[in-house]
Amino acid sequence: MFETPTLKTLIGKLRRLPGIGEKTAQRLALFILEQPGRYAEELAAALCEARERIHPCPSCGIPTEAEICQVCSSPHRDLSRICIVEKPQDAAAIEATREFRGLYYVLHGLISPLKGIGPEELGLPVLLQKIAPGKVTELIIALNRSVEGEATALYLEQKLSGSGIAMTRLATGIPMGADLEYADKMTLSRAIADRRKL
Amino acid sequence: MFETPTLKTLIGKLRRLPGIGEKTAQRLALFILEQPGRYAEELAAALCEARERIHPCPSCGIPTEAEICQVCSSPHRDLSRICIVEKPQDAAAIEATREFRGLYYVLHGLISPLKGIGPEELGLPVLLQKIAPGKVTELIIALNRSVEGEATALYLEQKLSGSGIAMTRLATGIPMGADLEYADKMTLSRAIADRRKL
Repeated sequence: MFETPTLKTLIGKLRRLPGIGEKTAQRLALFILEQPGRYAEELAAALCEARERIHPCPSCGIPTEAEICQVCSSPHRDLSRICIVEKPQDAAAIEATREFRGLYYVLHGLISPLKGIGPEELGLPVLLQKIAPGKVTELIIALNRSVEGEATALYLEQKLSGSGIAMTRLATGIPMGADLEYADKMTLSRAIADRRKL
Repeated sequence: MFETPTLKTLIGKLRRLPGIGEKTAQRLALFILEQPGRYAEELAAALCEARERIHPCPSCGIPTEAEICQVCSSPHRDLSRICIVEKPQDAAAIEATREFRGLYYVLHGLISPLKGIGPEELGLPVLLQKIAPGKVTELIIALNRSVEGEATALYLEQKLSGSGIAMTRLATGIPMGADLEYADKMTLSRAIADRRKL
């Protein structure tokens, strides 16, 4: 690349974005510079404004511009169920199904000893305190079935065993419309073990 | 998505980037907001600074911060050869090979009647005037072998026929290390037609 100092800086900043490598960062930088009008300035302004105005909801962690988020402030939600998710996007995906009317709790991460992320970093003790008083009857663990997701689920299960709060997890199985033949072994075994009566 | 107005604006701006769809734009926006420190502000500043300082070289179109670019201002370049490319990235790729020591001319596009881009929009008359005086002996067409690339090459060929300037094109053929079995028919026929003596 013809890397002038400021172009180099811009490419470096763009490279920090997830899924953006050196080549893509170069392409994006040159695309931005070649846009007619004030696109670069508008993008810059949008970045600063979003950063300034948006903050995680103090109650659940969903991004919001208001004092508390649209889910927590809604009078139509079932306060007895809390759905634990890793990222705001996961909560958004669940919202889109319209199947869940309870509240969320966004961890903004998962327990990962390798990365030095423990229960405290995720605010799990805060969550446990919050649900202690007894209004919550079900905790739905909607975490990815990765090593970190399992570790986080296990921690919550251990802390809440005997608390009387029902702990549930999203069902694991063959996706709708997927071909059974190509399902991975782990998913297929789980789907067999968790089979449901017709 | 939990689209607050400013988040929606930011996602909208990010979506204009090439190869970035709705989902990726959401992911990038939330990633940016979740970064510790002042990443969003730094990215915004880098965007504005790059846009302000970088401009196409008035002589060849390569992005530069100086009055003329590093290629045009170098005393070690062969002024008798000009390589025509579509984008600055293409010139950068050729530079990386260290095979070419001439000058470049970046079209920032290709002739495309469907998109309303003709020779004037690409500055081709300016290029033709520039090479008219007689210092240039070879014009290397390094454009992609697409319909638009072929149209642009054809235009230059017609305009320069009889001018005494040699017109060449990058060789087409099987890429190094590629498997002949999987080469597309067009490329393979061209490779056979253009076969070279050992």
